[in-house]
Amino acid sequence: MTTDQLILNGQTVADFMKEEMVAKVAMIKEKGILPCLATILVGNDPSSETYVRMKGNACARLGVHSIKVVLPAETTTEELIQEINKLNADHSVHGILLQHPVPHHINERAAFDAISIEKDVDGVTTQGYALNAFGAAAFPSCTPQAIIRILDFYRIQIEGKHAVVIGRSPILGKPVSAMLLNRNATVTTCHSKTVNLDEIVRLGDIVIAAVGKPLFVKGSWIKPGAVVIDAGYNKGNVGDVDYVSCLEQSSAITPVPGGVGPVTIATLIEHTIQSAYMLSERA
Amino acid sequence: MTTDQLILNGQTVADFMKEEMVAKVAMIKEKGILPCLATILVGNDPSSETYVRMKGNACARLGVHSIKVVLPAETTTEELIQEINKLNADHSVHGILLQHPVPHHINERAAFDAISIEKDVDGVTTQGYALNAFGAAAFPSCTPQAIIRILDFYRIQIEGKHAVVIGRSPILGKPVSAMLLNRNATVTTCHSKTVNLDEIVRLGDIVIAAVGKPLFVKGSWIKPGAVVIDAGYNKGNVGDVDYVSCLEQSSAITPVPGGVGPVTIATLIEHTIQSAYMLSERA
Repeated sequence: MTTDQLILNGQTVADFMKEEMVAKVAMIKEKGILPCLATILVGNDPSSETYVRMKGNACARLGVHSIKVVLPAETTTEELIQEINKLNADHSVHGILLQHPVPHHINERAAFDAISIEKDVDGVTTQGYALNAFGAAAFPSCTPQAIIRILDFYRIQIEGKHAVVIGRSPILGKPVSAMLLNRNATVTTCHSKTVNLDEIVRLGDIVIAAVGKPLFVKGSWIKPGAVVIDAGYNKGNVGDVDYVSCLEQSSAITPVPGGVGPVTIATLIEHTIQSAYMLSERA
Repeated sequence: MTTDQLILNGQTVADFMKEEMVAKVAMIKEKGILPCLATILVGNDPSSETYVRMKGNACARLGVHSIKVVLPAETTTEELIQEINKLNADHSVHGILLQHPVPHHINERAAFDAISIEKDVDGVTTQGYALNAFGAAAFPSCTPQAIIRILDFYRIQIEGKHAVVIGRSPILGKPVSAMLLNRNATVTTCHSKTVNLDEIVRLGDIVIAAVGKPLFVKGSWIKPGAVVIDAGYNKGNVGDVDYVSCLEQSSAITPVPGGVGPVTIATLIEHTIQSAYMLSERA
């Protein structure tokens, strides 16, 4: 590790975002509106419970109200959509987060797409994805937005760089590829069927690991001096990146925990505040 | 040029598609339904007039009805959307094609997105893009679909191949990147801000030129044995690919004209027939 190497500290970015958010919340409250995030948890997966609790705590720290809807594991798709529709119609709710994954018997895509676009602060709807891919206004998916935010905070150039994204999920790999493309990166999207993945990753000036496999990306895959962003979060508090070996190779890297995670949560709440502001302007 | 080299003949693919389409049209007509494509032309750009005429002629050859809506160049966005809404409501119309580009003062994206998803046989709506990117059912954008169709017809493997797409427009570069990704290619999307474009293109097992610059892609950029698909169509009847030099390097290549173009038109009409069938089932 050289002295030029940067640890991209997500908590620093989240703290930086916090100041502006607190000011905005105060401004909105003066109008008599209390920004409110509704989270929906289906079943009792311990990790999901933890995530929902972390999001609620972060809301509380920023003066944002949050409500939790907890539904039993056997909830049907139709019942879940009914709950979402209630929240869509509730004027006191400004953002809706459906914690994923939902139990397998539920049509997750249908549930996501039931969230009204105005309240889709987590950026999970099909429509939100497309609007963002086409550069239009909608809340972008939070983790991809957090990745861009970290790169911008640390003044890492995106335009003209070759970004390699490992993963193609609808809420991470695909939207982050689209966002990097819109920021004028040359973008390669890889996945489980990619041949010679290590060689492809070695092309990247910026490497985004979004694959969901613990310690998957090795230092030997990283072009010396590349920027490594670890968007993974696996059991045992480890990311998708083999941090020690990748740290050696990279010019900048996000740790796990304390990298993308805190910025993702801050982004979610920022979107909720923004939604409250926009919905209040419209009322 | 070796004897193994393939000229990917779009007319052959379109002729192959024709047989099935004629049979389907006959079947739908037996139900008393006449498949109908409505084309909208705003202004009098000679190229656009030609394209609309070609599409109308292709409909006629296949027994598909077509109607042409011709609007003056000074049509406003609101007036255009009114016309689109009339066609959305018209049960005798199964597909709507808005010929692009429209005059600059019109909000083309708003006009595209006014087309109801069921009748978006050209695959230009934001919603259609996202549904396709997520692998759901909607009519894919016709030119990207034609490219996949040609690759499949000539049994060119997509899965595991590195596809390099040059261009990122909402109706071509972005959707073809998404479709190749969904077919398990590793996909790199390039554009005007890409640095060392020739080196990036040289990575491609499959190269898609969708940039809109005549004879832009040179043979020296092509990895020996790569497959070259020219989705460009520029003034003077030339594509985006410098055909002569790229032919030397490639294992398979589409000519212009006679490559992607005829298959795009056939795909548009196939979607119209499919839409007529689906709408008739629903009625």
